Amino acid sequence: MTELKNDRFLRALMKQPVDVTPVWMMRQAGRYLPEYRATRAEAGDFMSLCMNPEKACEVTLQPLDRYPQLDAAILFSDILTIPDAMGLGLYFETGEGPRFKKSVRTAADIEALPVVDTKKDLTYVTDAVSTIRKELNGRVPLIGFTGSPWTLATYMVEGGSSKDYRRTKAMMYDQPELLHLLIDKLVLSITDYLNEQILAGAQAVQIFDSWGGALSHAAYQEFSLQPMQRIIDGLIKEHEGRQVPVILFTKGGGQWLEMMADTGAAALGLDWTTDIAQAKARVGDRVALQGNMDPAVLYASPKRIREEVGAILKGFGQGPGHIFNLGHGVTPQVDPAHAGAFFEAVHELSAAYHQG
Amino acid sequence: MTELKNDRFLRALMKQPVDVTPVWMMRQAGRYLPEYRATRAEAGDFMSLCMNPEKACEVTLQPLDRYPQLDAAILFSDILTIPDAMGLGLYFETGEGPRFKKSVRTAADIEALPVVDTKKDLTYVTDAVSTIRKELNGRVPLIGFTGSPWTLATYMVEGGSSKDYRRTKAMMYDQPELLHLLIDKLVLSITDYLNEQILAGAQAVQIFDSWGGALSHAAYQEFSLQPMQRIIDGLIKEHEGRQVPVILFTKGGGQWLEMMADTGAAALGLDWTTDIAQAKARVGDRVALQGNMDPAVLYASPKRIREEVGAILKGFGQGPGHIFNLGHGVTPQVDPAHAGAFFEAVHELSAAYHQG
Repeated sequence: MTELKNDRFLRALMKQPVDVTPVWMMRQAGRYLPEYRATRAEAGDFMSLCMNPEKACEVTLQPLDRYPQLDAAILFSDILTIPDAMGLGLYFETGEGPRFKKSVRTAADIEALPVVDTKKDLTYVTDAVSTIRKELNGRVPLIGFTGSPWTLATYMVEGGSSKDYRRTKAMMYDQPELLHLLIDKLVLSITDYLNEQILAGAQAVQIFDSWGGALSHAAYQEFSLQPMQRIIDGLIKEHEGRQVPVILFTKGGGQWLEMMADTGAAALGLDWTTDIAQAKARVGDRVALQGNMDPAVLYASPKRIREEVGAILKGFGQGPGHIFNLGHGVTPQVDPAHAGAFFEAVHELSAAYHQG
Repeated sequence: MTELKNDRFLRALMKQPVDVTPVWMMRQAGRYLPEYRATRAEAGDFMSLCMNPEKACEVTLQPLDRYPQLDAAILFSDILTIPDAMGLGLYFETGEGPRFKKSVRTAADIEALPVVDTKKDLTYVTDAVSTIRKELNGRVPLIGFTGSPWTLATYMVEGGSSKDYRRTKAMMYDQPELLHLLIDKLVLSITDYLNEQILAGAQAVQIFDSWGGALSHAAYQEFSLQPMQRIIDGLIKEHEGRQVPVILFTKGGGQWLEMMADTGAAALGLDWTTDIAQAKARVGDRVALQGNMDPAVLYASPKRIREEVGAILKGFGQGPGHIFNLGHGVTPQVDPAHAGAFFEAVHELSAAYHQG
């Protein structure tokens, strides 16, 4: 167990004092980086990259090598590894989102689905975690992650990406017990998956509830939040002598922060539609906040990026409990120099909020 | 001027007592109706239908003939008539969203854009309004509408639909004065457009801010809300001896209802992510509320639809100021019988909330 040289990110998650606001970026190992595109071209397709622990480690570390400011690494993987391990046959078509060879639409489909045992079915993920952790050698903490049960269920029922989640919502409104059966299997699978990531070396975990924001207020609670709550309840709380904080991110969930803050998550991810000052006032000191710059700000000039970083730091104000991030993943068209300007601005401008 | 036989919708907008909660449905004249598909097939493409006042009138009235419960008609038209009249060349490709032959990306592009004069450039819309109004013969009120300046600007800058509004947001963050120039021209054009709809017979108007929810809290105020405020300020307040209420609908705007309630709009449209009881508590009696059932509920059984209607009515509770609607437009795959079950349920179940 190597000593952690930079624990800013973990400290901020626990709302402990830090010297500057820690920063990382969703999809920081991704297509906006030429070195990522080169490794991916060598690996073949996207899933070959995810399934190769050495290559996954290589791309995970690329942004850290380029940007000395980054305060966390995040496992390079996909949110759909679990449905794939359930036997649905994940594949990616060029220019399209993810697809499954099989979708699940009937009671028989859902009853036939196994609960995934990570130690048997997803060793490529835990191997990637332990490889990355070893290669990081204590530079920064490593974040593990999963998609939320609701989010995974939409891909499984629709057979891929969707604009309106028509089939999943029809099931939700007409056969809620069937959707619950699917979600229950996902809760068990995901809890095991995150625990195995933690045991393999993930020092914090994030639940990506990418599509929770498509639900009604009531449906969000029943089909997305409560299942995530059950996952959080089942996670290993401490490992290697440290707490393992959970970050809960529902994109489009700005109206539900109070409920999300009651789940036991250490931090809530905010997308850019939420004012961070108001969010802080609403959740009080129950949770840390992660976010929340509009990823599109990275298309603007470094000067403008710096202004926007300053506005968000000012919104959060004095004191610990803020992890700077975008409000969603960085997009492929972003200039890597602009990402660098973003990280620099966070460290430079935030020092003033952590004095005394 | 024919007497209005059913003024429930207008009364509810003014928060006056009604016998039952009025109901209409966004995109109620649309592809889910076989009679609409037949008229559209005759007319040729979608814009030919919009540009033919008799055909536009015919499809506007179709849902009213099928569903006796409907308490309002809405002009059949498109939100992109104004950019088209500015010379961008709107067209629709099968299976794709709307497209423009020309997009606007430079200062020269935007400076060259005219402000639209509805009386010269969009007579097909005002002709449709007066034709529909005449054919309605006082059955129910007629709603006019427009897209919001921000929403129209996204289509104009991107050249059509977009997932992330990349070019528009790059302009917003890097050349805000340029985007403001475009939005200023849209504000003038839209104000005139809605006023001409009112003079032609529209008895209420709705501003569809379809993409305001993609903005950050600060950008929403500057680039979407304030321009809409200026439109509302410039509208005819009373016509034919009645107030002309404005409905403001920002999809994804649930975090901003308090600000929206200060614009002078009579009512706010709510999408289904917002809890209507909480929305009512937040805006008090400043505005009426319109919405907000998840359109996907219409895929469920009539029994389930009825339950969901009951839950929303219960959420709003006693008293006037609620117009029932979906939280977004009805989708083409919906069974027309399910739409009927929805409208029936609203009238039947709401009577209890309007007694005494």
